[in-house]
Amino acid sequence: MHKFEILKEDHSTKARTGIITTSHGTVQTPAFMPVATLGTVKSITPEELQELGFSMIISNAYHLYLRPGHKQIREFGGLHKFMNWNNSIATDSGGFQVLSLAKKRKIKEDGIVFQSHLDGSEHFLTPKLSIEIQEHVGSDIMMCLDECPPYSDDYKAIDKSLELTGRWARLCKESRTTDEHGQIGALFGIVQGGVFSDLRKKSAEQLMDIDFDGYSIGGLGIGEDPHKTHELIEYTAALLPKDKTRYAMGIGNPADIIQAVSGGVDLFDCVIPTRNARNGTLFTNTGKLVIKNAQFTSDSKPIDESCSCYTCKNYSRAYIRHLYICKEILAIRLLTMHNLSFFGSLMKSIRERLGDGTFADLIKRYETTEVI
Amino acid sequence: MHKFEILKEDHSTKARTGIITTSHGTVQTPAFMPVATLGTVKSITPEELQELGFSMIISNAYHLYLRPGHKQIREFGGLHKFMNWNNSIATDSGGFQVLSLAKKRKIKEDGIVFQSHLDGSEHFLTPKLSIEIQEHVGSDIMMCLDECPPYSDDYKAIDKSLELTGRWARLCKESRTTDEHGQIGALFGIVQGGVFSDLRKKSAEQLMDIDFDGYSIGGLGIGEDPHKTHELIEYTAALLPKDKTRYAMGIGNPADIIQAVSGGVDLFDCVIPTRNARNGTLFTNTGKLVIKNAQFTSDSKPIDESCSCYTCKNYSRAYIRHLYICKEILAIRLLTMHNLSFFGSLMKSIRERLGDGTFADLIKRYETTEVI
Repeated sequence: MHKFEILKEDHSTKARTGIITTSHGTVQTPAFMPVATLGTVKSITPEELQELGFSMIISNAYHLYLRPGHKQIREFGGLHKFMNWNNSIATDSGGFQVLSLAKKRKIKEDGIVFQSHLDGSEHFLTPKLSIEIQEHVGSDIMMCLDECPPYSDDYKAIDKSLELTGRWARLCKESRTTDEHGQIGALFGIVQGGVFSDLRKKSAEQLMDIDFDGYSIGGLGIGEDPHKTHELIEYTAALLPKDKTRYAMGIGNPADIIQAVSGGVDLFDCVIPTRNARNGTLFTNTGKLVIKNAQFTSDSKPIDESCSCYTCKNYSRAYIRHLYICKEILAIRLLTMHNLSFFGSLMKSIRERLGDGTFADLIKRYETTEVI
Repeated sequence: MHKFEILKEDHSTKARTGIITTSHGTVQTPAFMPVATLGTVKSITPEELQELGFSMIISNAYHLYLRPGHKQIREFGGLHKFMNWNNSIATDSGGFQVLSLAKKRKIKEDGIVFQSHLDGSEHFLTPKLSIEIQEHVGSDIMMCLDECPPYSDDYKAIDKSLELTGRWARLCKESRTTDEHGQIGALFGIVQGGVFSDLRKKSAEQLMDIDFDGYSIGGLGIGEDPHKTHELIEYTAALLPKDKTRYAMGIGNPADIIQAVSGGVDLFDCVIPTRNARNGTLFTNTGKLVIKNAQFTSDSKPIDESCSCYTCKNYSRAYIRHLYICKEILAIRLLTMHNLSFFGSLMKSIRERLGDGTFADLIKRYETTEVI
């Protein structure tokens, strides 16, 4: 099942709060989905994720197809059971990953031939296979297979590409099968169109004609000018049906999220909190902090004095820096917990401020503190 | 403070149950100390360690001296506060690590000159410095600086070495200072003597003459024949004062622990549960399990069907194997939790069986199941 209900609309922006209901529970929006590429949010248990306030994660058809294989996951009753996560799971179609990770790939009319980045083995990812993978893993929100061209491609190439994405989207919708309860999985179309607003419009209209359960804004945050990203997310969000979930894929930084929320986006995912944590870069309410810096060697303060996460309640910057320098796994755990807590708190704060009508203050704060 | 009290002596072996009291709480013996080399039991939080049933961990003067430095740890109020562990901490003197890890070392009458394995910098570890390091980190049970010669050294070399260990032990005892509460730290002497029982006796007598709070059996489990290890632990334990804690350093495997307990040993530490976990080797009640083996690819059973740890309650062998193959950090966490839980349960079972007079059954079980 899939339902999206708008709870409240902001008076001064296009932002809204809402609830997505899937067969694995509800998700309060605007929401951020931690990335569980291989069926785990790196270093964190499902119980910890839930305590951090997340109710939906996103996994990936490309990665799960290669390891451990979607058929195996189906044998285990789906990804929820396999990885011990009882809340909602969205999945990306694999389109973006095939194009960014695979050793070689060739885009054809009916799919993408690619060589695995792991062992060079050849595979053919079609719209039908992408849906099969996502259905086998039991995804609560599936994505259509899309082609995500480099942001620097010219108008003609982007136009040609979005047409293909449109045809694949239709095939994806038609490829869905009913599950053992007679249910059909929720499916989002992915709007492409590069940095050209008229192509964004064309792509959105194509997908709305097909009619999806929600709409994703893809192909942004991949190298283009950040102002362009903001402008295009807002422009594209405004084209999409008001009563459907809008999801800005791979976005992003806290400031980007706030800007996109104010443009009417409901859903986000990004590797930033988890990947930055592994690289030792932490989000704090006073800006970013790079834990390996020598200035923290004897610093007895927590990472963020205004944070109440497990890491900040119990450990000093000096101790965490020591663990990080020594390449101790606990460092990764503690840093990931903190960054996810930061993102969880940010989303909660966004929802609360939309609820009590003070969202504009939050926008102002992020506009004036460039650091975050 | 330091106190050791015997609760019950076994009727058929030399085993006993007891309680060690330090200023950070009590430790029920026989006890196993997980290894926290750099101020963390790799991948595990202090809260998890406590839940797994451990009340004392062991850290290391050599490692903490090099990173982050014992002076820094003192500034943070000691290792307990620095690492967020409120129970007891024992520390090894650094003798064993200097000899096994340092790039170059030269043993002199008054200490060991060595080059750091990290950056080649030169240091001079003396009995006094070893005690200073252990006092600075706030160790509840310190070890004397010892020389741990290779097991293959000849009688004369071992004899010469244990004489040095004896002189250093006296210097260590004399080097202790009183803390801010007027307390002096507990200190254990380390019995050396290689594989020669009369040298073990000589070393034990030297140390007992000096009089320590407890006695460690060092220099075993380092390559000599395992039967010899068992024989010498039992022999050495019997030489030591009954009313003091006996600690078999670096021992070991479950079967070794049970044998040593029956010889009257109270305390153990070993990297086996944590290191094996990181290498994907798990302890189970039916033998060892190597998680990367292909046979577990589709295995829906937990690692150990008779285990009630977090890992075994929530995850299949197939899922954990998938994480392990993908080098996911969560694999290390889950496997370390399981192995530590196995060791925690083993020690609890030993204490319970000593308590109700059925320890002989446990010995028999480990004698007949060679696998564990």
